[in-house]
Amino acid sequence: MEHRIKKLEQMLKNDRFANHNDIRLVSVGKGEATAEMLVAENHLNGVNIIQGGALFTLADFAFAAASNSHGRIAVASHASINFFRGVSSGKLTARASELSSGKTLATYTVDIVDEEGTKIAFFNGTAFLKGEY
Amino acid sequence: MEHRIKKLEQMLKNDRFANHNDIRLVSVGKGEATAEMLVAENHLNGVNIIQGGALFTLADFAFAAASNSHGRIAVASHASINFFRGVSSGKLTARASELSSGKTLATYTVDIVDEEGTKIAFFNGTAFLKGEY
Amino acid sequence: MEHRIKKLEQMLKNDRFANHNDIRLVSVGKGEATAEMLVAENHLNGVNIIQGGALFTLADFAFAAASNSHGRIAVASHASINFFRGVSSGKLTARASELSSGKTLATYTVDIVDEEGTKIAFFNGTAFLKGEY
Amino acid sequence: MEHRIKKLEQMLKNDRFANHNDIRLVSVGKGEATAEMLVAENHLNGVNIIQGGALFTLADFAFAAASNSHGRIAVASHASINFFRGVSSGKLTARASELSSGKTLATYTVDIVDEEGTKIAFFNGTAFLKGEY
Repeated sequence: MEHRIKKLEQMLKNDRFANHNDIRLVSVGKGEATAEMLVAENHLNGVNIIQGGALFTLADFAFAAASNSHGRIAVASHASINFFRGVSSGKLTARASELSSGKTLATYTVDIVDEEGTKIAFFNGTAFLKGEY
Repeated sequence: MEHRIKKLEQMLKNDRFANHNDIRLVSVGKGEATAEMLVAENHLNGVNIIQGGALFTLADFAFAAASNSHGRIAVASHASINFFRGVSSGKLTARASELSSGKTLATYTVDIVDEEGTKIAFFNGTAFLKGEY
Repeated sequence: MEHRIKKLEQMLKNDRFANHNDIRLVSVGKGEATAEMLVAENHLNGVNIIQGGALFTLADFAFAAASNSHGRIAVASHASINFFRGVSSGKLTARASELSSGKTLATYTVDIVDEEGTKIAFFNGTAFLKGEY
Repeated sequence: MEHRIKKLEQMLKNDRFANHNDIRLVSVGKGEATAEMLVAENHLNGVNIIQGGALFTLADFAFAAASNSHGRIAVASHASINFFRGVSSGKLTARASELSSGKTLATYTVDIVDEEGTKIAFFNGTAFLKGEY
Protein backbone atom coordinates (compact mmCIF):
# COMPACT_ATOMS: atom_id res chain seq x y z
CA MET A 1 0.00 0.00 0.00
CA GLU A 2 2.71 2.45 1.11
CA HIS A 3 4.48 1.73 -2.16
CA ARG A 4 1.35 2.36 -4.20
CA ILE A 5 0.58 5.69 -2.55
CA LYS A 6 4.16 6.73 -3.45
CA LYS A 7 3.57 5.76 -7.06
CA LEU A 8 0.24 7.59 -7.06
CA GLU A 9 1.81 10.72 -5.58
CA GLN A 10 4.39 10.71 -8.37
CA MET A 11 1.65 10.35 -10.98
CA LEU A 12 -0.24 13.26 -9.43
CA LYS A 13 2.91 15.41 -9.29
CA ASN A 14 3.19 14.84 -13.00
CA ASP A 15 -0.25 16.39 -13.66
CA ARG A 16 0.89 19.34 -15.75
CA PHE A 17 -2.55 20.92 -16.06
CA ALA A 18 -2.91 21.01 -12.27
CA ASN A 19 0.64 22.34 -11.91
CA HIS A 20 0.15 24.99 -14.59
CA ASN A 21 -2.93 26.20 -12.68
CA ASP A 22 -1.33 26.16 -9.21
CA ILE A 23 -3.41 23.33 -7.80
CA ARG A 24 -1.67 21.43 -5.06
CA LEU A 25 -2.29 17.98 -3.54
CA VAL A 26 -2.57 18.24 0.25
CA SER A 27 -3.10 14.57 1.07
CA VAL A 28 -4.32 11.31 -0.35
CA GLY A 29 -5.50 8.15 1.38
CA LYS A 30 -7.63 5.13 0.54
CA GLY A 31 -10.72 6.51 -1.21
CA GLU A 32 -10.12 10.11 -0.21
CA ALA A 33 -7.97 13.10 -1.09
CA THR A 34 -7.62 16.82 -0.44
CA ALA A 35 -6.33 19.48 -2.85
CA GLU A 36 -6.06 23.24 -2.63
CA MET A 37 -5.64 26.35 -4.73
CA LEU A 38 -4.90 29.97 -3.88
CA VAL A 39 -7.17 31.97 -6.18
CA ALA A 40 -5.06 34.30 -8.34
CA GLU A 41 -5.43 36.55 -11.37
CA ASN A 42 -4.91 33.57 -13.71
CA HIS A 43 -8.01 31.79 -12.36
CA LEU A 44 -10.45 34.62 -13.10
CA ASN A 45 -12.98 34.91 -15.92
CA GLY A 46 -14.07 38.01 -17.85
CA VAL A 47 -16.25 39.30 -15.02
CA ASN A 48 -13.53 38.92 -12.39
CA ILE A 49 -14.73 35.85 -10.54
CA ILE A 50 -13.16 32.42 -10.58
CA GLN A 51 -13.77 30.61 -13.87
CA GLY A 52 -15.97 27.51 -13.62
CA GLY A 53 -13.20 25.47 -15.22
CA ALA A 54 -10.78 26.41 -12.43
CA LEU A 55 -13.21 25.16 -9.78
CA PHE A 56 -13.89 22.02 -11.80
CA THR A 57 -10.16 21.33 -12.22
CA LEU A 58 -9.53 21.71 -8.49
CA ALA A 59 -12.32 19.22 -7.72
CA ASP A 60 -11.33 16.90 -10.56
CA PHE A 61 -7.76 16.72 -9.28
CA ALA A 62 -8.94 15.66 -5.80
CA PHE A 63 -11.29 13.15 -7.47
CA ALA A 64 -8.42 11.76 -9.60
CA ALA A 65 -6.27 11.31 -6.50
CA ALA A 66 -9.02 9.57 -4.53
CA SER A 67 -10.24 7.37 -7.38
CA ASN A 68 -6.73 6.17 -8.20
CA SER A 69 -5.96 5.37 -4.56
CA HIS A 70 -6.90 1.69 -4.74
CA GLY A 71 -3.98 0.68 -6.95
CA ARG A 72 -5.92 0.64 -10.20
CA ILE A 73 -5.89 3.22 -13.00
CA ALA A 74 -9.15 5.17 -12.76
CA VAL A 75 -10.38 7.08 -15.81
CA ALA A 76 -13.19 9.62 -15.40
CA SER A 77 -16.30 8.78 -17.40
CA HIS A 78 -18.68 11.44 -16.08
CA ALA A 79 -18.63 14.40 -13.73
CA SER A 80 -21.02 17.13 -12.70
CA ILE A 81 -20.59 20.29 -10.67
CA ASN A 82 -22.94 22.68 -8.86
CA PHE A 83 -21.69 26.24 -8.47
CA PHE A 84 -22.95 27.97 -5.33
CA ARG A 85 -20.96 31.17 -5.00
CA GLY A 86 -18.47 33.22 -6.99
CA VAL A 87 -15.16 34.06 -5.32
CA SER A 88 -12.22 36.08 -6.58
CA SER A 89 -9.52 35.55 -3.96
CA GLY A 90 -8.49 33.39 -1.01
CA LYS A 91 -7.62 29.72 -0.56
CA LEU A 92 -10.03 27.04 -1.73
CA THR A 93 -9.96 23.48 -0.45
CA ALA A 94 -11.44 20.45 -2.24
CA ARG A 95 -12.14 17.27 -0.27
CA ALA A 96 -12.98 14.12 -2.18
CA SER A 97 -14.66 11.14 -0.57
CA GLU A 98 -15.92 7.83 -1.88
CA LEU A 99 -19.65 7.27 -2.33
CA SER A 100 -19.44 3.84 -3.88
CA SER A 101 -16.83 1.54 -5.35
CA GLY A 102 -17.63 -1.48 -7.50
CA LYS A 103 -15.70 -3.86 -9.73
CA THR A 104 -15.54 -1.46 -12.69
CA LEU A 105 -17.08 1.85 -11.59
CA ALA A 106 -16.46 4.07 -8.58
CA THR A 107 -18.25 7.28 -7.63
CA TYR A 108 -16.90 10.17 -5.55
CA THR A 109 -18.19 13.50 -4.28
CA VAL A 110 -15.99 16.55 -3.76
CA ASP A 111 -16.85 19.57 -1.59
CA ILE A 112 -15.08 22.84 -2.35
CA VAL A 113 -15.04 25.31 0.54
CA ASP A 114 -13.32 28.63 1.21
CA GLU A 115 -11.26 29.51 4.30
CA GLU A 116 -14.39 30.12 6.39
CA GLY A 117 -15.82 26.76 5.37
CA THR A 118 -18.47 28.33 3.13
CA LYS A 119 -19.53 25.94 0.36
CA ILE A 120 -18.39 27.19 -3.04
CA ALA A 121 -19.12 24.18 -5.25
CA PHE A 122 -20.09 20.50 -5.15
CA PHE A 123 -18.69 17.95 -7.59
CA ASN A 124 -19.76 14.38 -8.33
CA GLY A 125 -17.60 12.12 -10.50
CA THR A 126 -17.65 8.54 -11.72
CA ALA A 127 -14.50 6.72 -12.79
CA PHE A 128 -14.00 3.57 -14.77
CA LEU A 129 -11.45 1.25 -13.12
CA LYS A 130 -8.81 -0.35 -15.32
CA GLY A 131 -5.78 -2.53 -14.53
CA GLU A 132 -3.28 -2.02 -11.73
CA TYR A 133 -0.60 0.69 -11.99
CA MET B 1 -27.02 43.65 -31.06
CA GLU B 2 -23.78 44.36 -32.94
CA HIS B 3 -22.75 46.57 -30.00
CA ARG B 4 -23.55 43.85 -27.47
CA ILE B 5 -21.57 41.18 -29.27
CA LYS B 6 -18.58 43.60 -29.20
CA LYS B 7 -19.01 44.03 -25.45
CA LEU B 8 -19.32 40.28 -24.99
CA GLU B 9 -16.19 39.62 -27.05
CA GLN B 10 -14.26 42.03 -24.85
CA MET B 11 -15.56 40.26 -21.74
CA LEU B 12 -14.48 36.91 -23.17
CA LYS B 13 -11.04 38.24 -24.15
CA ASN B 14 -10.63 39.18 -20.52
CA ASP B 15 -11.13 35.55 -19.37
CA ARG B 16 -7.69 35.04 -17.87
CA PHE B 17 -8.19 31.36 -17.06
CA ALA B 18 -9.06 30.61 -20.69
CA ASN B 19 -6.10 32.72 -21.87
CA HIS B 20 -3.70 31.09 -19.43
CA ASN B 21 -4.74 27.71 -20.82
CA ASP B 22 -4.59 28.68 -24.51
CA ILE B 23 -8.29 28.44 -25.18
CA ARG B 24 -9.44 30.68 -28.00
CA LEU B 25 -12.89 31.96 -29.01
CA VAL B 26 -13.56 31.18 -32.66
CA SER B 27 -17.00 32.74 -33.01
CA VAL B 28 -20.06 33.75 -31.01
CA GLY B 29 -23.61 34.40 -32.18
CA LYS B 30 -27.07 34.46 -30.63
CA GLY B 31 -27.29 31.34 -28.47
CA GLU B 32 -24.22 29.68 -29.92
CA ALA B 33 -20.43 29.84 -29.81
CA THR B 34 -17.33 27.93 -30.88
CA ALA B 35 -14.00 27.73 -29.05
CA GLU B 36 -10.83 25.78 -29.71
CA MET B 37 -7.65 24.59 -28.06
CA LEU B 38 -4.46 23.06 -29.41
CA VAL B 39 -3.60 20.30 -26.93
CA ALA B 40 -0.14 20.92 -25.47
CA GLU B 41 2.09 19.65 -22.67
CA ASN B 42 0.38 22.01 -20.19
CA HIS B 43 -2.99 20.35 -20.71
CA LEU B 44 -1.87 16.83 -19.80
CA ASN B 45 -2.46 14.89 -16.60
CA GLY B 46 -0.15 12.45 -14.83
CA VAL B 47 -0.82 9.62 -17.29
CA ASN B 48 -0.17 11.80 -20.35
CA ILE B 49 -3.70 12.36 -21.60
CA ILE B 50 -5.64 15.60 -21.52
CA GLN B 51 -6.82 16.47 -18.01
CA GLY B 52 -10.59 16.41 -17.51
CA GLY B 53 -10.42 19.99 -16.27
CA ALA B 54 -8.88 21.15 -19.55
CA LEU B 55 -11.74 19.60 -21.54
CA PHE B 56 -14.29 21.03 -19.11
CA THR B 57 -12.74 24.50 -19.36
CA LEU B 58 -12.82 24.43 -23.16
CA ALA B 59 -16.52 23.49 -23.11
CA ASP B 60 -17.32 25.90 -20.29
CA PHE B 61 -15.78 28.78 -22.21
CA ALA B 62 -17.96 28.07 -25.28
CA PHE B 63 -20.97 27.75 -22.93
CA ALA B 64 -20.12 31.10 -21.27
CA ALA B 65 -19.92 32.77 -24.67
CA ALA B 66 -23.23 31.32 -25.87
CA SER B 67 -25.13 31.86 -22.63
CA ASN B 68 -24.05 35.50 -22.39
CA SER B 69 -24.99 36.21 -26.00
CA HIS B 70 -28.47 37.55 -25.26
CA GLY B 71 -27.28 40.74 -23.59
CA ARG B 72 -27.76 39.51 -20.03
CA ILE B 73 -25.08 38.37 -17.58
CA ALA B 74 -25.29 34.56 -17.37
CA VAL B 75 -23.81 32.79 -14.35
CA ALA B 76 -23.34 29.01 -14.47
CA SER B 77 -25.33 27.15 -11.82
CA HIS B 78 -24.70 23.58 -12.91
CA ALA B 79 -22.71 21.69 -15.53
CA SER B 80 -21.98 18.08 -16.35
CA ILE B 81 -19.56 16.41 -18.73
CA ASN B 82 -19.23 12.96 -20.30
CA PHE B 83 -15.73 11.92 -21.29
CA PHE B 84 -15.62 9.59 -24.29
CA ARG B 85 -11.99 9.37 -25.32
CA GLY B 86 -8.57 10.45 -24.08
CA VAL B 87 -6.40 12.51 -26.43
CA SER B 88 -2.90 13.89 -25.99
CA SER B 89 -2.38 16.13 -29.00
CA GLY B 90 -4.17 17.89 -31.86
CA LYS B 91 -6.76 20.63 -32.08
CA LEU B 92 -10.04 20.30 -30.20
CA THR B 93 -13.16 22.26 -31.10
CA ALA B 94 -16.09 22.94 -28.77
CA ARG B 95 -19.45 23.99 -30.22
CA ALA B 96 -22.13 25.28 -27.86
CA SER B 97 -25.78 25.44 -28.82
CA GLU B 98 -28.92 26.41 -26.95
CA LEU B 99 -31.29 23.73 -25.72
CA SER B 100 -33.71 25.99 -23.89
CA SER B 101 -33.87 29.59 -22.73
CA GLY B 102 -36.36 30.86 -20.18
CA LYS B 103 -36.83 34.01 -18.13
CA THR B 104 -34.20 33.11 -15.55
CA LEU B 105 -32.53 29.87 -16.63
CA ALA B 106 -30.97 28.80 -19.92
CA THR B 107 -29.50 25.40 -20.83
CA TYR B 108 -26.82 24.65 -23.40
CA THR B 109 -25.04 21.58 -24.74
CA VAL B 110 -21.46 21.59 -25.98
CA ASP B 111 -19.88 18.95 -28.24
CA ILE B 112 -16.11 18.62 -28.18
CA VAL B 113 -14.62 16.96 -31.26
CA ASP B 114 -11.10 16.42 -32.59
CA GLU B 115 -9.86 17.28 -36.09
CA GLU B 116 -11.47 14.16 -37.59
CA GLY B 117 -14.79 15.01 -35.99
CA THR B 118 -14.51 12.18 -33.44
CA LYS B 119 -16.52 12.95 -30.29
CA ILE B 120 -14.21 13.52 -27.33
CA ALA B 121 -16.65 14.86 -24.72
CA PHE B 122 -20.19 16.14 -24.25
CA PHE B 123 -21.05 18.99 -21.87
CA ASN B 124 -24.40 20.21 -20.58
CA GLY B 125 -24.66 23.48 -18.64
CA THR B 126 -27.37 25.60 -17.07
CA ALA B 127 -26.92 29.33 -16.45
CA PHE B 128 -28.85 31.74 -14.30
CA LEU B 129 -29.68 34.94 -16.18
CA LYS B 130 -29.12 38.24 -14.37
CA GLY B 131 -29.42 41.89 -15.51
CA GLU B 132 -28.18 43.35 -18.80
CA TYR B 133 -24.48 44.02 -19.33
CA MET C 1 -43.73 27.38 10.45
CA GLU C 2 -45.98 24.69 11.95
CA HIS C 3 -48.75 25.93 9.69
CA ARG C 4 -46.52 25.82 6.62
CA ILE C 5 -45.34 22.27 7.26
CA LYS C 6 -49.05 21.29 7.44
CA LYS C 7 -49.70 22.95 4.09
CA LEU C 8 -46.63 21.26 2.62
CA GLU C 9 -47.70 17.86 3.93
CA GLN C 10 -51.08 18.32 2.24
CA MET C 11 -49.39 19.25 -1.02
CA LEU C 12 -47.20 16.15 -0.80
CA LYS C 13 -50.18 13.92 0.01
CA ASN C 14 -51.69 15.16 -3.21
CA ASP C 15 -48.72 13.89 -5.29
CA ARG C 16 -50.63 11.35 -7.36
CA PHE C 17 -47.56 9.97 -9.12
CA ALA C 18 -45.92 9.17 -5.78
CA ASN C 19 -49.18 7.67 -4.48
CA HIS C 20 -49.72 5.60 -7.62
CA ASN C 21 -46.23 4.15 -7.14
CA ASP C 22 -46.55 3.49 -3.39
CA ILE C 23 -44.01 6.07 -2.27
CA ARG C 24 -44.65 7.37 1.20
CA LEU C 25 -43.42 10.47 3.03
CA VAL C 26 -41.87 9.52 6.37
CA SER C 27 -40.96 12.98 7.65
CA VAL C 28 -40.20 16.50 6.52
CA GLY C 29 -38.37 19.31 8.32
CA LYS C 30 -36.57 22.50 7.37
CA GLY C 31 -34.33 21.59 4.44
CA GLU C 32 -34.68 17.83 4.90
CA ALA C 33 -37.08 14.99 4.27
CA THR C 34 -37.31 11.21 4.28
CA ALA C 35 -39.44 9.01 2.01
CA GLU C 36 -39.75 5.27 1.59
CA MET C 37 -40.96 2.60 -0.78
CA LEU C 38 -41.50 -1.13 -0.44
CA VAL C 39 -40.21 -2.59 -3.71
CA ALA C 40 -43.00 -4.54 -5.41
CA GLU C 41 -43.79 -6.16 -8.76
CA ASN C 42 -44.96 -2.82 -10.17
CA HIS C 43 -41.53 -1.22 -9.65
CA LEU C 44 -39.61 -3.77 -11.70
CA ASN C 45 -38.21 -3.43 -15.21
CA GLY C 46 -37.92 -6.06 -17.95
CA VAL C 47 -34.96 -7.81 -16.33
CA ASN C 48 -36.62 -8.02 -12.89
CA ILE C 49 -34.73 -5.32 -11.04
CA ILE C 50 -36.10 -1.98 -9.89
CA GLN C 51 -36.60 0.43 -12.78
CA GLY C 52 -34.34 3.50 -12.72
CA GLY C 53 -37.42 5.70 -12.87
CA ALA C 54 -38.78 4.16 -9.66
CA LEU C 55 -35.55 4.96 -7.81
CA PHE C 56 -35.50 8.46 -9.31
CA THR C 57 -39.11 9.09 -8.28
CA LEU C 58 -38.45 7.99 -4.70
CA ALA C 59 -35.47 10.40 -4.49
CA ASP C 60 -37.29 13.17 -6.31
CA PHE C 61 -40.21 12.97 -3.89
CA ALA C 62 -37.87 13.40 -0.89
CA PHE C 63 -36.16 16.25 -2.76
CA ALA C 64 -39.52 17.93 -3.48
CA ALA C 65 -40.46 17.71 0.19
CA ALA C 66 -37.14 19.15 1.40
CA SER C 67 -36.90 21.88 -1.23
CA ASN C 68 -40.44 23.09 -0.54
CA SER C 69 -39.89 23.15 3.22
CA HIS C 70 -38.97 26.86 3.42
CA GLY C 71 -42.43 28.14 2.58
CA ARG C 72 -41.71 28.88 -1.06
CA ILE C 73 -42.78 26.86 -4.11
CA ALA C 74 -39.69 25.01 -5.38
CA VAL C 75 -39.66 23.75 -8.97
CA ALA C 76 -36.96 21.27 -10.03
CA SER C 77 -34.71 22.59 -12.77
CA HIS C 78 -32.12 19.82 -12.88
CA ALA C 79 -31.45 16.47 -11.26
CA SER C 80 -28.94 13.67 -11.63
CA ILE C 81 -28.76 10.16 -10.23
CA ASN C 82 -26.02 7.55 -9.80
CA PHE C 83 -27.18 3.95 -9.69
CA PHE C 84 -24.98 1.71 -7.54
CA ARG C 85 -26.84 -1.56 -7.19
CA GLY C 86 -29.91 -3.28 -8.55
CA VAL C 87 -32.50 -4.53 -6.04
CA SER C 88 -35.76 -6.37 -6.58
CA SER C 89 -37.38 -6.44 -3.14
CA GLY C 90 -37.24 -4.91 0.33
CA LYS C 91 -37.80 -1.43 1.73
CA LEU C 92 -35.83 1.50 0.33
CA THR C 93 -35.35 4.75 2.22
CA ALA C 94 -34.48 8.11 0.64
CA ARG C 95 -33.04 10.88 2.82
CA ALA C 96 -32.79 14.38 1.35
CA SER C 97 -30.57 17.06 2.85
CA GLU C 98 -29.72 20.59 1.83
CA LEU C 99 -26.37 21.32 0.24
CA SER C 100 -26.95 24.99 -0.47
CA SER C 101 -29.85 27.43 -0.49
CA GLY C 102 -29.71 30.83 -2.18
CA LYS C 103 -32.22 33.53 -3.12
CA THR C 104 -33.47 31.71 -6.22
CA LEU C 105 -31.77 28.32 -6.38
CA ALA C 106 -31.38 25.54 -3.82
CA THR C 107 -29.48 22.27 -4.16
CA TYR C 108 -30.13 19.00 -2.34
CA THR C 109 -28.60 15.55 -2.24
CA VAL C 110 -30.58 12.37 -1.57
CA ASP C 111 -29.14 9.04 -0.45
CA ILE C 112 -31.16 5.92 -1.16
CA VAL C 113 -30.31 2.95 1.05
CA ASP C 114 -31.80 -0.49 1.63
CA GLU C 115 -32.73 -2.02 5.00
CA GLU C 116 -29.08 -2.90 5.73
CA GLY C 117 -27.96 0.63 4.97
CA THR C 118 -26.30 -0.39 1.69
CA LYS C 119 -26.18 2.50 -0.77
CA ILE C 120 -28.46 1.88 -3.75
CA ALA C 121 -28.40 5.28 -5.46
CA PHE C 122 -27.34 8.91 -5.01
CA PHE C 123 -29.40 11.84 -6.29
CA ASN C 124 -28.52 15.50 -6.66
CA GLY C 125 -31.21 18.05 -7.50
CA THR C 126 -31.47 21.80 -7.96
CA ALA C 127 -34.75 23.68 -7.53
CA PHE C 128 -35.79 27.14 -8.59
CA LEU C 129 -37.53 29.00 -5.76
CA LYS C 130 -40.72 30.89 -6.58
CA GLY C 131 -43.23 32.80 -4.41
CA GLU C 132 -44.62 31.68 -1.05
CA TYR C 133 -47.31 29.01 -0.90
CA MET D 1 -30.49 -8.68 -35.59
CA GLU D 2 -34.21 -9.16 -36.34
CA HIS D 3 -34.23 -11.88 -33.70
CA ARG D 4 -32.52 -9.67 -31.16
CA ILE D 5 -34.91 -6.78 -31.64
CA LYS D 6 -37.75 -9.26 -30.98
CA LYS D 7 -36.08 -10.38 -27.77
CA LEU D 8 -35.51 -6.77 -26.76
CA GLU D 9 -39.13 -5.83 -27.46
CA GLN D 10 -40.28 -8.69 -25.22
CA MET D 11 -37.94 -7.51 -22.46
CA LEU D 12 -39.33 -3.97 -22.78
CA LYS D 13 -42.94 -5.22 -22.77
CA ASN D 14 -42.12 -6.83 -19.45
CA ASP D 15 -41.14 -3.48 -17.87
CA ARG D 16 -43.84 -3.39 -15.22
CA PHE D 17 -42.95 0.09 -13.95
CA ALA D 18 -43.35 1.55 -17.45
CA ASN D 19 -46.61 -0.40 -17.93
CA HIS D 20 -47.99 0.64 -14.54
CA ASN D 21 -47.36 4.27 -15.54
CA ASP D 22 -48.81 4.01 -19.07
CA ILE D 23 -45.54 4.49 -20.91
CA ARG D 24 -45.51 2.87 -24.32
CA LEU D 25 -42.66 1.93 -26.68
CA VAL D 26 -43.24 3.40 -30.13
CA SER D 27 -40.17 2.04 -31.91
CA VAL D 28 -36.66 0.76 -31.31
CA GLY D 29 -33.73 0.48 -33.71
CA LYS D 30 -29.96 0.25 -33.48
CA GLY D 31 -28.91 2.92 -30.98
CA GLU D 32 -32.26 4.71 -30.95
CA ALA D 33 -35.77 4.42 -29.57
CA THR D 34 -38.98 6.37 -29.16
CA ALA D 35 -41.47 6.12 -26.29
CA GLU D 36 -44.63 8.03 -25.44
CA MET D 37 -47.01 8.80 -22.62
CA LEU D 38 -50.41 10.44 -22.46
CA VAL D 39 -50.27 12.66 -19.37
CA ALA D 40 -53.04 11.66 -16.96
CA GLU D 41 -54.13 12.30 -13.39
CA ASN D 42 -51.77 9.57 -12.13
CA HIS D 43 -48.70 11.42 -13.47
CA LEU D 44 -49.33 14.67 -11.57
CA ASN D 45 -47.60 15.97 -8.47
CA GLY D 46 -49.08 17.96 -5.58
CA VAL D 47 -49.22 21.21 -7.55
CA ASN D 48 -50.95 19.62 -10.56
CA ILE D 49 -48.09 19.44 -13.00
CA ILE D 50 -46.34 16.31 -14.22
CA GLN D 51 -44.07 14.83 -11.55
CA GLY D 52 -40.35 14.94 -12.36
CA GLY D 53 -40.18 11.18 -11.84
CA ALA D 54 -42.81 10.61 -14.54
CA LEU D 55 -40.76 12.60 -17.07
CA PHE D 56 -37.59 10.82 -15.96
CA THR D 57 -39.24 7.41 -16.33
CA LEU D 58 -40.47 8.19 -19.84
CA ALA D 59 -36.94 9.24 -20.88
CA ASP D 60 -35.31 6.36 -19.02
CA PHE D 61 -37.51 3.84 -20.80
CA ALA D 62 -36.49 5.20 -24.24
CA PHE D 63 -32.86 5.17 -23.02
CA ALA D 64 -33.19 1.55 -21.85
CA ALA D 65 -34.59 0.52 -25.24
CA ALA D 66 -31.84 2.30 -27.20
CA SER D 67 -28.98 1.19 -24.96
CA ASN D 68 -30.04 -2.44 -25.06
CA SER D 69 -30.42 -2.43 -28.84
CA HIS D 70 -26.93 -3.76 -29.60
CA GLY D 71 -27.57 -7.25 -28.25
CA ARG D 72 -25.89 -6.71 -24.90
CA ILE D 73 -27.53 -6.13 -21.52
CA ALA D 74 -27.12 -2.43 -20.68
CA VAL D 75 -27.42 -1.30 -17.06
CA ALA D 76 -27.78 2.41 -16.29
CA SER D 77 -24.95 3.81 -14.19
CA HIS D 78 -25.77 7.49 -14.30
CA ALA D 79 -28.47 9.77 -15.68
CA SER D 80 -29.32 13.46 -15.50
CA ILE D 81 -32.36 15.45 -16.55
CA ASN D 82 -33.08 19.13 -17.23
CA PHE D 83 -36.68 20.21 -16.75
CA PHE D 84 -37.74 23.05 -19.04
CA ARG D 85 -41.47 23.34 -18.71
CA GLY D 86 -44.29 21.97 -16.59
CA VAL D 87 -47.20 20.31 -18.40
CA SER D 88 -50.38 18.73 -17.06
CA SER D 89 -51.98 17.10 -20.08
CA GLY D 90 -51.33 15.99 -23.66
CA LYS D 91 -49.07 13.42 -25.26
CA LEU D 92 -45.33 13.50 -24.60
CA THR D 93 -42.78 11.85 -26.85
CA ALA D 94 -39.25 10.83 -25.83
CA ARG D 95 -36.64 10.20 -28.53
CA ALA D 96 -33.36 8.56 -27.51
CA SER D 97 -30.27 8.72 -29.67
CA GLU D 98 -26.72 7.50 -29.19
CA LEU D 99 -23.98 9.99 -28.38
CA SER D 100 -21.18 7.50 -27.94
CA SER D 101 -20.73 3.77 -27.61
CA GLY D 102 -17.56 2.11 -26.35
CA LYS D 103 -16.55 -1.35 -25.22
CA THR D 104 -18.09 -1.05 -21.76
CA LEU D 105 -19.91 2.30 -21.58
CA ALA D 106 -22.46 3.92 -23.87
CA THR D 107 -24.04 7.36 -23.58
CA TYR D 108 -27.42 8.50 -24.89
CA THR D 109 -29.43 11.71 -24.93
CA VAL D 110 -33.22 11.81 -24.85
CA ASP D 111 -35.39 14.76 -25.90
CA ILE D 112 -38.90 14.97 -24.49
CA VAL D 113 -41.28 17.12 -26.50
CA ASP D 114 -45.03 17.79 -26.43
CA GLU D 115 -47.42 17.55 -29.38
CA GLU D 116 -46.32 20.96 -30.72
CA GLY D 117 -42.65 19.92 -30.53
CA THR D 118 -41.95 22.22 -27.57
CA LYS D 119 -39.05 20.93 -25.49
CA ILE D 120 -40.22 19.73 -22.10
CA ALA D 121 -37.08 18.02 -20.76
CA PHE D 122 -33.64 16.79 -21.80
CA PHE D 123 -32.12 13.56 -20.44
CA ASN D 124 -28.57 12.24 -20.63
CA GLY D 125 -27.77 8.69 -19.54
CA THR D 126 -24.77 6.39 -19.42
CA ALA D 127 -25.08 2.60 -19.40
CA PHE D 128 -22.63 -0.10 -18.54
CA LEU D 129 -22.60 -2.87 -21.15
CA LYS D 130 -22.62 -6.48 -19.93
CA GLY D 131 -22.84 -9.81 -21.75
CA GLU D 132 -25.17 -10.67 -24.64
CA TYR D 133 -28.85 -11.38 -23.99
